[in-house]
Amino acid sequence: MLTVMGGNDMPGHTHHQDDRLRRLRKVEGQVRGLQRMVDEDRYCIDILTQVSAVTRALQAFSLDLLDEHMRTCVAEAVAKGGDEADGKLREAHDAITRLVRS
Amino acid sequence: MLTVMGGNDMPGHTHHQDDRLRRLRKVEGQVRGLQRMVDEDRYCIDILTQVSAVTRALQAFSLDLLDEHMRTCVAEAVAKGGDEADGKLREAHDAITRLVRS
Amino acid sequence: MLTVMGGNDMPGHTHHQDDRLRRLRKVEGQVRGLQRMVDEDRYCIDILTQVSAVTRALQAFSLDLLDEHMRTCVAEAVAKGGDEADGKLREAHDAITRLVRS
Amino acid sequence: MLTVMGGNDMPGHTHHQDDRLRRLRKVEGQVRGLQRMVDEDRYCIDILTQVSAVTRALQAFSLDLLDEHMRTCVAEAVAKGGDEADGKLREAHDAITRLVRS
Repeated sequence: MLTVMGGNDMPGHTHHQDDRLRRLRKVEGQVRGLQRMVDEDRYCIDILTQVSAVTRALQAFSLDLLDEHMRTCVAEAVAKGGDEADGKLREAHDAITRLVRS
Repeated sequence: MLTVMGGNDMPGHTHHQDDRLRRLRKVEGQVRGLQRMVDEDRYCIDILTQVSAVTRALQAFSLDLLDEHMRTCVAEAVAKGGDEADGKLREAHDAITRLVRS
Repeated sequence: MLTVMGGNDMPGHTHHQDDRLRRLRKVEGQVRGLQRMVDEDRYCIDILTQVSAVTRALQAFSLDLLDEHMRTCVAEAVAKGGDEADGKLREAHDAITRLVRS
Repeated sequence: MLTVMGGNDMPGHTHHQDDRLRRLRKVEGQVRGLQRMVDEDRYCIDILTQVSAVTRALQAFSLDLLDEHMRTCVAEAVAKGGDEADGKLREAHDAITRLVRS
């Protein structure tokens, strides 16, 4: 059930933060792995396959972060209504557009 | 300024509907144009360029429709809070995920 | 086994053409279906789901057309080498870039 | 002008390799920057904007690597024709499909 609360007040916030850091460290490791593959002059198709895996991991990271943002900051602003809601919804729309087009 | 109201009560609703129908009829015309290009055995690269134009038009259509959905149905549910808000936000998240991955 | 031949000499060319026309007519029908959904003021999420289906169908169409182009026009040019190969490979690269970014 | 040669024989190969390593190290730095943003609990939209920048950099990296692969390994196989060409073109098609869908 959604009870609208501010971003940092969310009880699960630290849990989410830890999970995000863990996922980004994994991506960092994958990118260093790509560097080794290039250094070892590995076959291009294998490198391309690994890059697609990194891109998909970043995409999933963004979708989850966007979802939490909608459930906290945007929901809080919408509950208040007015210009704040308008601004938050426009920001979310622009972020979704960047995500779709990257 | 965002005043939360139901989807169909929006004064601009008919205007948005007309605009959407106009955009979809244009896409329909572009797809028929693609059929002619295939029929006339036009150069593949030219056909691919035209398909990319159609895909971008559909993407823009989806982004605008999603934005209006967020400002009406989702905002209305979030203002009420509870399970309804939860459901609408999950639905929006799934729609954004499909949009990103298509 | 790949025997390099010009685009239109390919025995399967008419078959491919028929298949492409069939797929594009299906897309045209789906787009008209979208128009009905908008006209009937159907729920936004259902319309978005249908648009994603159309975009995926166009994407698959483009990937197949690109593959055949690589196996005919580009392969023929590469077999000859020189500037013609260079031009065809650059064209294919640009088409792939558009496809990735649309 | 395209003179077909094997992947590692390409005179520019080391140059390309250095450029690739440089780009991947930059991405690694950007991902560490994302970790700091999460750690500092920076605003979600700013983090999402930075993730889109990393995804676009990886996409450009892949498109360039694919282009060089087409101009070397695939072109060399196509010049020979037969099953080798067939296999290389199918591999390239699968890599392009992954790139489009990630």
